[in-house]
Amino acid sequence: MTDLLRSWVETANTPDTDFPLNNLPYGVFSIDGGKASCGAAIGDKILNLSALEASGRINFDGSLCTGSWNAFMALGKQEWARLREELSTFLVEGSEPQPAYLVAMADAALHMPFAVSEFTDFYAGKHHATNVGTMFRGAENALPPNWLSIPIGYNGRASSVVVSGTPIKRPHGQLKGPNDELPHFAPSSRFDIELEMGAIVGTASQGPITVAEAYDNLFGYVLLNDWSARDIQAWEYQPLGPFQAKATATSISPWIVTAAALEPFRVSTPKRERPQLNYLNEPGPMLYDIALEVALTPNGGNENIICRTNYREMYYSAAQQLAHHTTSGCPMRVGDLLGSGTISGPGKDNRGSLLEISWGGKEPFTLDSGEARSFLEDGDTVTLRGAAEGDGYRVGFGECVGTVMSA
Amino acid sequence: MTDLLRSWVETANTPDTDFPLNNLPYGVFSIDGGKASCGAAIGDKILNLSALEASGRINFDGSLCTGSWNAFMALGKQEWARLREELSTFLVEGSEPQPAYLVAMADAALHMPFAVSEFTDFYAGKHHATNVGTMFRGAENALPPNWLSIPIGYNGRASSVVVSGTPIKRPHGQLKGPNDELPHFAPSSRFDIELEMGAIVGTASQGPITVAEAYDNLFGYVLLNDWSARDIQAWEYQPLGPFQAKATATSISPWIVTAAALEPFRVSTPKRERPQLNYLNEPGPMLYDIALEVALTPNGGNENIICRTNYREMYYSAAQQLAHHTTSGCPMRVGDLLGSGTISGPGKDNRGSLLEISWGGKEPFTLDSGEARSFLEDGDTVTLRGAAEGDGYRVGFGECVGTVMSA
Repeated sequence: MTDLLRSWVETANTPDTDFPLNNLPYGVFSIDGGKASCGAAIGDKILNLSALEASGRINFDGSLCTGSWNAFMALGKQEWARLREELSTFLVEGSEPQPAYLVAMADAALHMPFAVSEFTDFYAGKHHATNVGTMFRGAENALPPNWLSIPIGYNGRASSVVVSGTPIKRPHGQLKGPNDELPHFAPSSRFDIELEMGAIVGTASQGPITVAEAYDNLFGYVLLNDWSARDIQAWEYQPLGPFQAKATATSISPWIVTAAALEPFRVSTPKRERPQLNYLNEPGPMLYDIALEVALTPNGGNENIICRTNYREMYYSAAQQLAHHTTSGCPMRVGDLLGSGTISGPGKDNRGSLLEISWGGKEPFTLDSGEARSFLEDGDTVTLRGAAEGDGYRVGFGECVGTVMSA
Repeated sequence: MTDLLRSWVETANTPDTDFPLNNLPYGVFSIDGGKASCGAAIGDKILNLSALEASGRINFDGSLCTGSWNAFMALGKQEWARLREELSTFLVEGSEPQPAYLVAMADAALHMPFAVSEFTDFYAGKHHATNVGTMFRGAENALPPNWLSIPIGYNGRASSVVVSGTPIKRPHGQLKGPNDELPHFAPSSRFDIELEMGAIVGTASQGPITVAEAYDNLFGYVLLNDWSARDIQAWEYQPLGPFQAKATATSISPWIVTAAALEPFRVSTPKRERPQLNYLNEPGPMLYDIALEVALTPNGGNENIICRTNYREMYYSAAQQLAHHTTSGCPMRVGDLLGSGTISGPGKDNRGSLLEISWGGKEPFTLDSGEARSFLEDGDTVTLRGAAEGDGYRVGFGECVGTVMSA
């Protein structure tokens, strides 16, 4: 574990910031409705990388002046390392302070950090799959037969991915209760969250790649909330999987924490419970130790922490998921986003969806106000947070926030 | 039914051409490895629209000089009508012939006509769903309970959509026979086709739209072959739907036949067999009468027609599918591609997949050579064809071709 890297930006040296110099996550921001610029978070400031590149102090083919990280990602892994090195040199304590290139994060609007090419969502958390399977099929048949062999995934909807802060409108859809003869069309009354990590493909591939290659192709990670309408899902998902239940919105945190920043926090996936096909074998630890939490804040009320868990609970890593994704020859492109699947832990307090927390609505939970909850109410705000804990510093993700609006 | 519109391009006036002046489908072509240009098919020629716009004879904001139809589609419905009108005037018999703007189709390479934003595949053919359901669940449970209420769809993989002529490499994947204890990793041995139509979204939408709006937002149609690995699918698809089984490739025909060209061939969807929710009601006929066929040509052998069917067999139209797609608030973008689902007809000769033709491999069929087939062999070429038949002319799609290469 490395130590805190001190910066001349003083607020980056405090133990409680998400954004010390060790982190240097990338985002896109604007000030007062102006042009969208690429930036790196440092303490409570944003380093304006578009301005740095426009001034000629750094040179990445103009990619940092595009208002999106796709063009930079496409430059490849060597350039990823060079930017991180140059920014570290620029910001490190002892270098000449250049506050003219900083803006206050509090003054900035944060935008989608990259254009999502395609979005794939996985189902790779064993606790989550076991909980959901137990509810729907009983404890004996909880895990589907293929689950311990395949990182199960399905294609999601890239156009519905939004940045933290975007309001989430409760969806309409076809609903059918178990005793209804026919479905009716109405707003979802079982609207839910899923706590996930999103992995971003930074290098394109054509044809099958190994897990090691997949790891190298991943640029970075974000927090991801896969908003899910459980009642729409229940009626629509057989036989071809979830569709409109998952198409309303998926929120991501605005800062891409790079794989390079997470390097000191690598951990292995849990022990295999069934012999694994060779193409999924990991040459080294490819998960990360990232503490995660979910907060629910009702309209006008207090924040309630409803889940604490860790990314290391996943059975499959993002590298394994990406390698599996390419087995069929499926081309992957810069900007593809892979959702980890819901990250629940073993205990009741570690459940990453309201479906699990309220056990399908049968065991409503209670907020600090005394109010009961099974699924989301209009006006509820959901906040995801995550950070890898170093020695005296943290590599954090900032927040991924969304408030539910009426249908 | 309108009559043949005669053109000064003589080959466009023959009854057997797919491309009379009534059609005017749009594609992208190049000559001798040169720049990709937008074009319209007319008889055995291509009208070079990039050259026409570059010369100032037509003006569509430079969109026809981009080598893709996305920018033009984004101009909107009024401009779609204006281009069709201007090209009809340019090409109609009696106008001054301008052969300098024509190239021989035989000399041209045809490219993807548009960039696919996202690809959604539906399951909206009742004969296909009934056949597949009967094989897997028995005749009593053939149609899933939601089938007559929902145009069932799932998100596919846009990066895997290729233009006709692209070789199709047999995929690897996880396979598990019913008597295997564990899966193994190997090339698919049940590699299949699906005969479909693809509908192209030409106008973006945000939030739910009506079926009438959806119809207006569709720019045109292509033939679509959704290559499918049945053995990969069987093991992976529960509970979240097909993933790698459908990610190898989806081939489309190179010419976009516009909704305007298909206007004379509108027909209604079949009578509803269950009361339909209002949001799916069609204000008028929104399917098309398009005769379809599938040919299979083994390596070095003759062409065998293995299926004849019609687009009008679909239970749900593309407009209904698109309206359903937006119910959750899912944003749709220019260039979204919607696969109809496999278009089988009622009879044995009308089945749009080998899975159905060989009844899951239990009833292999025989080629003219005497060779038996259940699924695709390496070297097999599959050709889809389709045309709406007018009085003395046809509005055709050209061919959608793919040859299977070894894994």
